[in-house]
Amino acid sequence: MKAVTVRSPGGLDHLQITDREAPGEPGPGEIRVRIHASSLNFHDMSVVTGVIPSEDGRIPMSDGAGVVEAVGEGVREFAVGDAVVSTFLPPWQDGLPHQDNFSAVPGDGVDGYACEQVVRPANWFTHQPSGYTHKESATLTTAGLTAWRALVEDGNLKAGDTVLVLGTGGVSIFALQFARMMGARVIATSSSDDKLERLRELGAEHTINYVTEPKWGKKVKALTNGRGVDQVIEVGGPGTVPQSIDAVRIGGLISLIGVLTGTGGNIPTAKLMIKQARLQGVVVGSRRHQLDMIRAIEASDMRPIIDSTFALEEIAKAFEHEKSGQHFGKICLEY
Amino acid sequence: MKAVTVRSPGGLDHLQITDREAPGEPGPGEIRVRIHASSLNFHDMSVVTGVIPSEDGRIPMSDGAGVVEAVGEGVREFAVGDAVVSTFLPPWQDGLPHQDNFSAVPGDGVDGYACEQVVRPANWFTHQPSGYTHKESATLTTAGLTAWRALVEDGNLKAGDTVLVLGTGGVSIFALQFARMMGARVIATSSSDDKLERLRELGAEHTINYVTEPKWGKKVKALTNGRGVDQVIEVGGPGTVPQSIDAVRIGGLISLIGVLTGTGGNIPTAKLMIKQARLQGVVVGSRRHQLDMIRAIEASDMRPIIDSTFALEEIAKAFEHEKSGQHFGKICLEY
Amino acid sequence: MKAVTVRSPGGLDHLQITDREAPGEPGPGEIRVRIHASSLNFHDMSVVTGVIPSEDGRIPMSDGAGVVEAVGEGVREFAVGDAVVSTFLPPWQDGLPHQDNFSAVPGDGVDGYACEQVVRPANWFTHQPSGYTHKESATLTTAGLTAWRALVEDGNLKAGDTVLVLGTGGVSIFALQFARMMGARVIATSSSDDKLERLRELGAEHTINYVTEPKWGKKVKALTNGRGVDQVIEVGGPGTVPQSIDAVRIGGLISLIGVLTGTGGNIPTAKLMIKQARLQGVVVGSRRHQLDMIRAIEASDMRPIIDSTFALEEIAKAFEHEKSGQHFGKICLEY
Amino acid sequence: MKAVTVRSPGGLDHLQITDREAPGEPGPGEIRVRIHASSLNFHDMSVVTGVIPSEDGRIPMSDGAGVVEAVGEGVREFAVGDAVVSTFLPPWQDGLPHQDNFSAVPGDGVDGYACEQVVRPANWFTHQPSGYTHKESATLTTAGLTAWRALVEDGNLKAGDTVLVLGTGGVSIFALQFARMMGARVIATSSSDDKLERLRELGAEHTINYVTEPKWGKKVKALTNGRGVDQVIEVGGPGTVPQSIDAVRIGGLISLIGVLTGTGGNIPTAKLMIKQARLQGVVVGSRRHQLDMIRAIEASDMRPIIDSTFALEEIAKAFEHEKSGQHFGKICLEY
Repeated sequence: MKAVTVRSPGGLDHLQITDREAPGEPGPGEIRVRIHASSLNFHDMSVVTGVIPSEDGRIPMSDGAGVVEAVGEGVREFAVGDAVVSTFLPPWQDGLPHQDNFSAVPGDGVDGYACEQVVRPANWFTHQPSGYTHKESATLTTAGLTAWRALVEDGNLKAGDTVLVLGTGGVSIFALQFARMMGARVIATSSSDDKLERLRELGAEHTINYVTEPKWGKKVKALTNGRGVDQVIEVGGPGTVPQSIDAVRIGGLISLIGVLTGTGGNIPTAKLMIKQARLQGVVVGSRRHQLDMIRAIEASDMRPIIDSTFALEEIAKAFEHEKSGQHFGKICLEY
Repeated sequence: MKAVTVRSPGGLDHLQITDREAPGEPGPGEIRVRIHASSLNFHDMSVVTGVIPSEDGRIPMSDGAGVVEAVGEGVREFAVGDAVVSTFLPPWQDGLPHQDNFSAVPGDGVDGYACEQVVRPANWFTHQPSGYTHKESATLTTAGLTAWRALVEDGNLKAGDTVLVLGTGGVSIFALQFARMMGARVIATSSSDDKLERLRELGAEHTINYVTEPKWGKKVKALTNGRGVDQVIEVGGPGTVPQSIDAVRIGGLISLIGVLTGTGGNIPTAKLMIKQARLQGVVVGSRRHQLDMIRAIEASDMRPIIDSTFALEEIAKAFEHEKSGQHFGKICLEY
Repeated sequence: MKAVTVRSPGGLDHLQITDREAPGEPGPGEIRVRIHASSLNFHDMSVVTGVIPSEDGRIPMSDGAGVVEAVGEGVREFAVGDAVVSTFLPPWQDGLPHQDNFSAVPGDGVDGYACEQVVRPANWFTHQPSGYTHKESATLTTAGLTAWRALVEDGNLKAGDTVLVLGTGGVSIFALQFARMMGARVIATSSSDDKLERLRELGAEHTINYVTEPKWGKKVKALTNGRGVDQVIEVGGPGTVPQSIDAVRIGGLISLIGVLTGTGGNIPTAKLMIKQARLQGVVVGSRRHQLDMIRAIEASDMRPIIDSTFALEEIAKAFEHEKSGQHFGKICLEY
Repeated sequence: MKAVTVRSPGGLDHLQITDREAPGEPGPGEIRVRIHASSLNFHDMSVVTGVIPSEDGRIPMSDGAGVVEAVGEGVREFAVGDAVVSTFLPPWQDGLPHQDNFSAVPGDGVDGYACEQVVRPANWFTHQPSGYTHKESATLTTAGLTAWRALVEDGNLKAGDTVLVLGTGGVSIFALQFARMMGARVIATSSSDDKLERLRELGAEHTINYVTEPKWGKKVKALTNGRGVDQVIEVGGPGTVPQSIDAVRIGGLISLIGVLTGTGGNIPTAKLMIKQARLQGVVVGSRRHQLDMIRAIEASDMRPIIDSTFALEEIAKAFEHEKSGQHFGKICLEY
């Protein structure tokens, strides 16, 4: 079978299309899946470029969607022909998180889905949302679930809440969509007026160009009549957290998801304290969260926003496109 | 001013239209409100018919909506001309419930809103949803807030959940609407196929005629592929709880709101136990819940379903209509 | 190896001591455990007496504690020689409950621990509390965890809360002990003044003889200065729930654990509603709950109260003793 | 009556003992209290030294305990002679926090309790714990409630959890005591081996001298067998948060309470994220939290640790002592 591997020490020029032996029959509790699609995330980028070092020859990509080809003994949840989508943290089935590294994450600590076939424990997958294509489903594993978990599981989102999303990455757009699905309002930022226009089309009530409005925290607060937003989907990290603290309401939630602006930096902790706000670290979610998210998607007509689609062999080109920052929505691989 | 009073021992023929002295100027922290609308609830019916005994001459009706005419010293939340709506349990501003009787409820333990003017502490009211009429707003105090509190505050509703609503009373229809607003699915019951048709128009995915399907609990479970519903808005009481237990999922919530079928009865407690379900008593909600609900309404285009509107003098006729059970949605008074 | 089996249709005279082939080597993810102790619960009684029908030849007893004899491939949590204790619902590792029957419960749907050796998946066990004997540990699987889960996981117990425990069964005594461990007060009932004395020695602040005080609900309320208790460990079922509703505070929790007085009965639902109380079905807990409980036990000097100990061959005699109702605390088997 | 006032711009040499007209009779809903004790907190220090600017002539001190001398119309909760203690944020009675400044805090935005008599709304006070002296009670308003709210209300503390407390300030010692009261373990830090000895006497299981062990975060993690602590009572601020992140478990809570090391600084946000930890701003708590805390205290034998007591006239001396950092436990004023 065809597979992409990352040769050490990583870098887009170290991505290699290889022939790998196809996996055999699934053992007890396992399924074999013909993977048809994946999608690109910041974390995948870190792996393929070597920012996160991984084993030489690692198959990258955490997102994988495809069709069950064979089921092992004792598997009751899936049948041959079922459309399935991967989970980001397979050991985290339900309940409390228990990992603070990526050693069990497909496409990082173990081989991922940039390949045509895998044999994995059945509970590393869930059903796809009914009616979704493989590439739409593939966007859910990382970006979709991160947004869902932050807003709904940690954030207990309810209708009438206001959510602030930063930029137009996958997580932010999903957060916008889930928030709208649940009757919440959205304020969105971007450096591009064109992208802001698209965010408004997707349901953002207010948008802010953070280049022309660098103190967007206070602006957000003003747009909520001084109350502040209930939640911030904070994908920026230390460079944006100070503005997010200005933007959030008393007792509100800032879901700390991203490291786009670095792994640490100056944070006005006294302001966080006096606002009694919560800065909550988030790393995707559990399989149960994914089941809940898919149930929500199926009760709605929400579709992921897909920017563009590449063949598996074009994976380096796909990541170049991601790097360019010109995209709006998810970049997918289809194979 | 004009007011309706309930002469002991109650009964629709004991409702009297009287002239009462208009209230004077509001004291510190108070407002004077010109009430323009109310709406009928099961609890109001119990008061006016004397099922719940109240003081002779009590002004009934817990729901009241109107316009601020005067504000007392220190009131900052409201200004003259503001459209406001009453709260059901004024001492319960926020946090934990602390009352197990109706001694502080307008229209029961204290005078209510079947009159033209009141002077009350400002925090007995909230703003109306922007764009709502007085009679639309009046439906929120009791029926709207009960549904909201059960689903969202106690039930932590999320998109993709399934909610079962029983019948077409005010609380059930509001629950249907709030559930849809938040991306949840709804299954609804009624004894009338015409009403079931209307429930489907409002967004119910499945409907059940409980006359032809007396074991609707198992039917509901089947409609959810054996999973059961996440929440039941249980307005029936002991006569319907056994079916609701069959209908709810493992670990699910049955919000016990109503006494339509009596104040007690035979409950299969072992079934409730083995399902690890939660039977949760609900009495409306706090003022903070009302603020949250109104915020949700304003972020949506939801409108209450109003069946019919009567003048204040027609209050007995309005309750006769309520008794007939022919209505669908709220019955309002406007004055 | 020696094993006890239940011949159809059950009954203490159908308990048979048999010789069974010892289990072989553990497979991947499994461990072999030399079981040394078990303890008796109401649920075990229902199985051995045939009230809950089970497969002919079923090995009963859900509680099992012993020593790891061999570990299969990939098992990292346990080593040979480790003292371990079984879990009641092995598929429920963490998160939400997902079973409403006993098909996966050792000693009911599958073979239990009334035998000398078992091979089971490693995650069907946890470590014993440090310093506990096997029989002390065996009391935790069912009775201990039920009390812990009700009070702490569902009930969010905090210091200063008041807990009402009914009678002197295993769950009730554990609840008393856990409540005291966490700085809560306890009110306890029994029909025996001698047992009430022992409950006071264990830390109950108030005790009530429910024979001489049949309206103990109001008595409990009075003992809390009219506030009511925060939680009731309701092991009685329909015969006691009405008193428990009188006893609980507004917004309080009644954990519905037992069926001692039947599987259904007359419940004053309107009272439950007006009190905004929560009647919560409880069936033991998850493996994660057990890990938390053991962590709590290890941080304290709590020891289970053991009434008496029997040899495996005396299992019928042990259940006769249980039936007599003369015991105080857990009845154990040791072998 | 005697009162202490802070003359602008603050400073210990600007504290003045003055004669003020005694307050008159309490109006409706008010009580007059003869204040007998207060205690010193970091926030009071900031007010009296002018770090937090306040109105010229402000009466400082947020903590106040004394005896009810007179009750106004409609006050039912208190009677003449009752021992009462003040609340830190009077408008926050229950439910969600709603203030991000100190404008309503006695001793900051409004006059405090460094005086002999006050007339205040009754709900600015609660009863003292039964058996407490005035000065013991006075320690609860700020320091006690901050610890309680962080651990119990936000942190949902349970037996078996491990809590890390930093230093020997009032909040940290209360946190140690509340944690022990609820069956939790405590790890404590200090720069003084003598103080560490006293922390162990109070129940700390492990102690760390942070001078000799500047990387105490990893040390704490090691002391918990690599699991990390469930909660950190983080009174240091930016200078200690990085170590606290190392110390906390996956999904754990860091309650951000203090600004001892500054109002902002370099925080390793990526570490917080990957640990899925929660950095939660805390400012004391609500009146309902205080009622709960007092209920907990009354169910235990916990007593505040009081370092020393000064007369009201010695207030500057008391603050000098606080500044010295030599104390262990609370510094009180008695008058």
